[in-house]
Amino acid sequence: MVYLNGNFIAKKNASISVMDRGFLFGDGVYEVIPTYQGKLFRLSAHLKRLQNSLDAIKIPNPYTNSEWQKILNQLLGYSQSENQSLYLQITRGVGTQRKHSFDTLTPTVYIELNPLVTKTKHALEKGFSVITQADIRWSQCDIKATSLLANVLYSQNAKDNQVEEIILHRNNVVTEGATSNVFMIKAGTLFTHPTGKYILSGITRDLVLESALACKLPIDESAFTVDALLNADEVWISSSTREIMPITQIDKQVINQGEVGRYWACVYHHYQQLKND
Amino acid sequence: MVYLNGNFIAKKNASISVMDRGFLFGDGVYEVIPTYQGKLFRLSAHLKRLQNSLDAIKIPNPYTNSEWQKILNQLLGYSQSENQSLYLQITRGVGTQRKHSFDTLTPTVYIELNPLVTKTKHALEKGFSVITQADIRWSQCDIKATSLLANVLYSQNAKDNQVEEIILHRNNVVTEGATSNVFMIKAGTLFTHPTGKYILSGITRDLVLESALACKLPIDESAFTVDALLNADEVWISSSTREIMPITQIDKQVINQGEVGRYWACVYHHYQQLKND
Repeated sequence: MVYLNGNFIAKKNASISVMDRGFLFGDGVYEVIPTYQGKLFRLSAHLKRLQNSLDAIKIPNPYTNSEWQKILNQLLGYSQSENQSLYLQITRGVGTQRKHSFDTLTPTVYIELNPLVTKTKHALEKGFSVITQADIRWSQCDIKATSLLANVLYSQNAKDNQVEEIILHRNNVVTEGATSNVFMIKAGTLFTHPTGKYILSGITRDLVLESALACKLPIDESAFTVDALLNADEVWISSSTREIMPITQIDKQVINQGEVGRYWACVYHHYQQLKND
Repeated sequence: MVYLNGNFIAKKNASISVMDRGFLFGDGVYEVIPTYQGKLFRLSAHLKRLQNSLDAIKIPNPYTNSEWQKILNQLLGYSQSENQSLYLQITRGVGTQRKHSFDTLTPTVYIELNPLVTKTKHALEKGFSVITQADIRWSQCDIKATSLLANVLYSQNAKDNQVEEIILHRNNVVTEGATSNVFMIKAGTLFTHPTGKYILSGITRDLVLESALACKLPIDESAFTVDALLNADEVWISSSTREIMPITQIDKQVINQGEVGRYWACVYHHYQQLKND
């Protein structure tokens, strides 16, 4: 069961016009919201970011927050699974002709649920490999937009190279992963790229910082170089589906002797507690 | 009548799955091919560029060139209009679940026709206004991809400011327009940004250069600055629907005393002849 423009329908029947600007122009935004034990996790933060994305590209928000909450919970009601990843996409709507500029249209709203299978602590503790690549994306990465071709190509490259993720750098400065945020520990401080136009301000990123505070780990939201990353004591990536994932190899270079670090364990522990809030 | 995945159907019945990667990720490419007197103009150049775009993002070309020719001409047969703009989009296809990386899928092919109404010489001779804006797009602008949100926002900005186009600059170097290529004349030489990853190599751009040769106008495919553009003797933009359009005002600053230049007239004349080839 999925939600499409006011209707709860079978996914196989969910179709849109070829004139939908999501299809023609990648003219839309999205959110991915985890649910734990049937409860939408950090919904208000997701709805706030959704509003920011919509505002940035001038799509009117079709629903109030309470209407969103009602729709999302109604969709959750159709599912048996306890932990899910809710995908929500809004496009500018269906135009009468293909032209870049737009008139006021009725936005298209599509929502689906997928099982959220997070890795166990044991599985995470083996550590993961990534590679670095130049960040060729546009410079409005703070908008969670569906014009995702660059991210698609990065993720495919990760798959082809059998690594977990691509870590991006702009002018040698680490920005974020293709589908994650990036953190490093150096000399007992947690570093991550500041929010702004070069990264998507992840909800999970905020939770990592919240958890780091609980671990009394000093936080420095400053940009750092690829070289600094390669020489970090610990490296993590975060996303709503990966949660906090320790990286032990970057460009085939081993990080922290291939060991998952002690700070990770503490932050991971607090993150798990936040999920039960 | 439109073409969708092997079928000629009414546009109102043309729909795609929400799982189409064109809708979810802007994961597709496109071409716009003008037709004059019922004949596809520079088809082989368009099919070659289409192949380049497909190769760049690893979508297999679903048809051979002769199959394309047959399909496009069949679609043209359904239309009465003499001059048309043919829009052709290929996406990676419909996946079973939303994930950035991809498996081999059957590409989605969508084609539609729209009347091509080009401006008369008289209408062009009044000159057009543009504004400049920083180029925030990704650095693979040579791929004619459907992840077009940046271009959408630029075109809307042009509309809001009642100008014809947005001329983009990267680090103060003029790249191209949001939906056009940019040319300037300085001291009897035609300048335009070299092909490469920062511009889309327009078929009309090639035709402008071809026409300039016929006018014995020296060509320099070198990047130039916004300041040079503002001090040019003539400025033009080109696209398959605009053809060659003279610009007489940039950021409210008048170019060439607001007059359409003499080089434009010659190049425009030759361009019209090429259309009848």
